[in-house]
Amino acid sequence: MNDPGDLRPNEEAVALEPASDATLRFIGTIHTPWRDRKDCPRQGRLDGPECQLVLDPVWHNALAGLEDYDTIEVLYWLDQSRRDLIRQSPRSDGQTFGTFALRSPVRPNPIGTSMVKLVRIEKGALIVRGLDCLDGTPLLDIKPDRCAFSPKAPDKTGGGE
Amino acid sequence: MNDPGDLRPNEEAVALEPASDATLRFIGTIHTPWRDRKDCPRQGRLDGPECQLVLDPVWHNALAGLEDYDTIEVLYWLDQSRRDLIRQSPRSDGQTFGTFALRSPVRPNPIGTSMVKLVRIEKGALIVRGLDCLDGTPLLDIKPDRCAFSPKAPDKTGGGE
Repeated sequence: MNDPGDLRPNEEAVALEPASDATLRFIGTIHTPWRDRKDCPRQGRLDGPECQLVLDPVWHNALAGLEDYDTIEVLYWLDQSRRDLIRQSPRSDGQTFGTFALRSPVRPNPIGTSMVKLVRIEKGALIVRGLDCLDGTPLLDIKPDRCAFSPKAPDKTGGGE
Repeated sequence: MNDPGDLRPNEEAVALEPASDATLRFIGTIHTPWRDRKDCPRQGRLDGPECQLVLDPVWHNALAGLEDYDTIEVLYWLDQSRRDLIRQSPRSDGQTFGTFALRSPVRPNPIGTSMVKLVRIEKGALIVRGLDCLDGTPLLDIKPDRCAFSPKAPDKTGGGE
């Protein structure tokens, strides 16, 4: 996957030591209709097919209250992606863009973020629409939509912790 | 930081093995005006103070093209956060919410995500508004705002890769 020979014209890779700054814990698995990278949509759509976020049992109680949100943010680990590209050529036509100017899965830390529609919650599994990742993608986090969310703690100017 | 004795009333923690599923590489450092967690705003505001994302030099060329975006998504590692809480009590009043129903920094994978205003880029440093994290927070990723971004590759229905 990190064979430099796989570069498209004008793409640029860098040599990196193995990543070692912090460690992730997968909290579950994402099930989608897409079994091959070439079948994944470029970007998820809120009217796309239902997908399932299956949480490991230890985290089931951490869902309490999430049912109040129509839209949630999902973070996942794009485990098929190489991590060493600086410039990428999405069209394979010699024109390149910096990795940080793209939402490509290929990035130094291949974390996908999607805003998805929460359809329903069933015993530790969330049914959602709006994803575009491969079936079997490891799940990292679930958060309420930042727009719909109001901090539950008192405002800092209103009297501290 | 993971001392069970630090729990607020009705909060729930779980015992976990050390995380070991995937490894992150910090790509730079975030500079903000906030040196103590109690000073951080609850949520960033696009009219908040200017903050700086300082990229490690190896990634500077990966910024090419990002200047076209007014709003960018920033991912960072909340390295001060415990990771074992299932239920949290933001108001310390005995009422709890599931971790995934909060945008608290305390979560199994403490990855912060913010949509920020890109003010300018200066030699590998991005000046932005809209963050709420501590000074010195490790940077994980930068992406164009998903709403403003159009995939650069041809549509899948239009003829493949």
